Amino acid sequence: MELSGQSLIGSRRGSRDGKSFQAANPQSGAPLEPIYYSATYAEIEEAAQLAAEAFTTYSQASGKTKAAFLRRIADGFDAHREELAERAHLETALPMPRLLGEVGRTSGQLRLFAGVVEEGSWVNARIDPALPDRQPPPRPDIRSMLRPLGPVVVFGASNFPLAFSVAGGDTASALAAGCPAIVKAHPAHPGTSELAGQIIAEAVAAGGLHPGIFSLLFDAGVEAGTALVKHPLIRAVAFTGSLRAGRALMDLAAARPDPIPCFTEMSSGNPVFVLPGALRKGPAALAASLFGSFTLGAGQFCTKPGIVLVPESSETARFVQELEKLVDQAQPYTLLTPGIAREYGRATQARSAKTPLAAKAAKPNPEHVCMVNAQLFTAKLDTFLMQSSLADEIFGPDTLLVRCDSTSDYLRAASALDGHLTATILGDEGDLATNRELIQILEKKAGRLVFNGFPTGVEVSHAMVHGGPYPSTSDPRFTSVGSLAIYRFARPICFQGFPQEMLPAELQDANPLGIRRIRDGKPEAS
Amino acid sequence: MELSGQSLIGSRRGSRDGKSFQAANPQSGAPLEPIYYSATYAEIEEAAQLAAEAFTTYSQASGKTKAAFLRRIADGFDAHREELAERAHLETALPMPRLLGEVGRTSGQLRLFAGVVEEGSWVNARIDPALPDRQPPPRPDIRSMLRPLGPVVVFGASNFPLAFSVAGGDTASALAAGCPAIVKAHPAHPGTSELAGQIIAEAVAAGGLHPGIFSLLFDAGVEAGTALVKHPLIRAVAFTGSLRAGRALMDLAAARPDPIPCFTEMSSGNPVFVLPGALRKGPAALAASLFGSFTLGAGQFCTKPGIVLVPESSETARFVQELEKLVDQAQPYTLLTPGIAREYGRATQARSAKTPLAAKAAKPNPEHVCMVNAQLFTAKLDTFLMQSSLADEIFGPDTLLVRCDSTSDYLRAASALDGHLTATILGDEGDLATNRELIQILEKKAGRLVFNGFPTGVEVSHAMVHGGPYPSTSDPRFTSVGSLAIYRFARPICFQGFPQEMLPAELQDANPLGIRRIRDGKPEAS
Repeated sequence: MELSGQSLIGSRRGSRDGKSFQAANPQSGAPLEPIYYSATYAEIEEAAQLAAEAFTTYSQASGKTKAAFLRRIADGFDAHREELAERAHLETALPMPRLLGEVGRTSGQLRLFAGVVEEGSWVNARIDPALPDRQPPPRPDIRSMLRPLGPVVVFGASNFPLAFSVAGGDTASALAAGCPAIVKAHPAHPGTSELAGQIIAEAVAAGGLHPGIFSLLFDAGVEAGTALVKHPLIRAVAFTGSLRAGRALMDLAAARPDPIPCFTEMSSGNPVFVLPGALRKGPAALAASLFGSFTLGAGQFCTKPGIVLVPESSETARFVQELEKLVDQAQPYTLLTPGIAREYGRATQARSAKTPLAAKAAKPNPEHVCMVNAQLFTAKLDTFLMQSSLADEIFGPDTLLVRCDSTSDYLRAASALDGHLTATILGDEGDLATNRELIQILEKKAGRLVFNGFPTGVEVSHAMVHGGPYPSTSDPRFTSVGSLAIYRFARPICFQGFPQEMLPAELQDANPLGIRRIRDGKPEAS
Repeated sequence: MELSGQSLIGSRRGSRDGKSFQAANPQSGAPLEPIYYSATYAEIEEAAQLAAEAFTTYSQASGKTKAAFLRRIADGFDAHREELAERAHLETALPMPRLLGEVGRTSGQLRLFAGVVEEGSWVNARIDPALPDRQPPPRPDIRSMLRPLGPVVVFGASNFPLAFSVAGGDTASALAAGCPAIVKAHPAHPGTSELAGQIIAEAVAAGGLHPGIFSLLFDAGVEAGTALVKHPLIRAVAFTGSLRAGRALMDLAAARPDPIPCFTEMSSGNPVFVLPGALRKGPAALAASLFGSFTLGAGQFCTKPGIVLVPESSETARFVQELEKLVDQAQPYTLLTPGIAREYGRATQARSAKTPLAAKAAKPNPEHVCMVNAQLFTAKLDTFLMQSSLADEIFGPDTLLVRCDSTSDYLRAASALDGHLTATILGDEGDLATNRELIQILEKKAGRLVFNGFPTGVEVSHAMVHGGPYPSTSDPRFTSVGSLAIYRFARPICFQGFPQEMLPAELQDANPLGIRRIRDGKPEAS
């Protein structure tokens, strides 16, 4: 596919009038062709108008139609697998195997949602039949189901250039719900974004759908995103990124004349509680697994374990020693952008002024602006509890060991935590049984509790919850990964007293779509 | 039951230190005993701390325990039926039959939620079993279900002193979800509130539950409500009332260091579209039904039809004439408070400066400060579209007829609407079939579409949606009436790799509660 550097406004190319910018190869710093042009305000307006226009028909599209569309995008991803991964590699320095895997995750995600909307029961159809003889008064016929919210703005994330970007989970779930999507591309990987955008635009055209269903806007700064979140025709926002940017979007969405839902997935320390059984099982293996988890993707996962609580025990010294050795010997990591690398440098520097730096890879020295070294901090529990900034997420390959006298300190530590995406417990089943209270506290602090695994792997499945209390996300009632993510973009509509033929198929007595429904509060006999 | 005038902080009475106030009989203006005392900041703090403490155990309470608790409250309501209605009548001037009915609605609502949580499937349990052989990598066991959010603040509404107040739908759904509730009583009916609060507190004690599950705070002003919405231990807010107050709470909740969900049900014009078939069927009957609907409860229903679109037809003159006659001859209505009556006077006065007042009941003249007359306004469609304030809700017995040349104007009118709780279409089935586009537009504007009924009746059932786009509510993805209301106060939690015995009963393989679950995206065989 060719890269043009221009936004996609529905089916047409944007102009070259806006401010220009270029991606850079994080490994070499070399600028990458082509030049990209920020969307103009007129183009933003046009994309919003087109999306609202498209919503009129797309909101009524059948599950079959939407499924075919999503599968067409997935097929496009698979067909351009290498091309997508290669461009993403140039723009992010993430390793090719990881990026090839991410293409598969992205197309898999699209197919998951295709399956959900094709099957159709996700709309939560409910029927309360009329009770004409009820006294007083007769009950009318009442039926409800979920319908799409309207045009959604999606912000591409820097750290997953495919799976959380232009055709990632946010776009897939919005399109599956029946909402047009306007994506604001992340400026660090515009080429990957344009390739993905072309694949979606081709699927729109091939399906004979309204071109306003999808637009892709480039922007060097924050103007386009701001304008989109404030635009009266936009009905919801989805974002993955920093706490600062995410909170700014939340505040913009809440300050609108008509506030809209704003899903931001932002900042998480993903605390790990090491229990004695885990240390007994093998301190060296534990250190290796933990090291692998916090340096995966150069530590640029939203689920990176950034806070690790360890009790004093006979194996602790060995565990810490092994971990220090792994960090000492680690090769340097290339982060996504010079800005992210700079921020990693600043944040680790600030942290080292507050608590000891236990280990830092020293050789070879970073050779270029995006290269950084893994770092390992330690803090006593009291220090950790007194200096709340030690719990702040640092984006990159570091972690903080919080040394506790014993696991009886864990309740105090857990109670002090803010919201996180995940909380992990490592130990044996006996440990788990004796720490029920800890689990109950962690349930209030995180969206996903992991036992004897590491949080960095996020399954795209039906039970997954990738969400958690603030500041990990804006709203812990929703997930941004897994099939439940579709529920962010739908609202229930109730039809009272409607004749059969005027009801959506999902609510007609004959149940032509054969979906699961609730009748008078109970599952309908099928 | 005795009335003390004091808040209920868990199981103990509040102090008499705060600013005092008294309810007044809207019909006579006479103050009603006893004197009520605003909660102090120390009491607000204590209620919040107690609620957080109670959440630790109540969040783990079984569906059976919660159901027994809710039924005990319902039984208390039924046992004190007359007492509740009589006090509510003194404080609100709403007629006794309506208030007796509202007691039944309130206890019915509590029993509806009891049934939902006792059955247990509402938690949306999902199981994605481990796939140890999957390459790469193996899939861990992932299970998720809904868990309660935490302490919820409920604001009692003025217009439903029982069903949307202390033990109303918000409190019932919060308690059903497993959330402690702190209710800020509406100052217009403190006695009714205290009676309801005592019934709940007795049910808490009888069930041996933590007293912090429920507190009831009185306040003459907005201080207690503001402090509660800003309190760090509060996890959600539910409110029914004016747009101004609701938006202020939304803004407070969004500006917190950690924003929390804030459900406000505020302002709705509930547009009614009259189609030719409805006029043909009988203009006089139509006028009588409409008059009954917009004056029900003295026009103080959130679902009052305040905007009625009528096409010119041979029957229109007769319909308007009949309606004018009914308004002319109407007895005066007693509104809930002097403030509400004053605002009705101001708003109708302002409206009459903008568009013709077609009819106004003239005799007998209002005799006291809460008494007002029904009013009927008319506007041409163009006037309505140009003066957006004509679409604003007026709380009280008035409505606005919007005269359209023909029903082909309806698309333009519907497109211009803001969000509403309901939108109604009156006509025959042929009318409905020729107005599919109108229905599609209305679907974007309202949470409930009514065909050939009036919106003022809101069923408490499983399919009901009492919600809609802003400004009718803060969030159209939820309802405040019906069993779906419980979903406002829950969030999904995911357990990864947990051994069976450490999982909540809802997620164990053996399914000891026998609930409906989703396994690998499909309903589990039972």
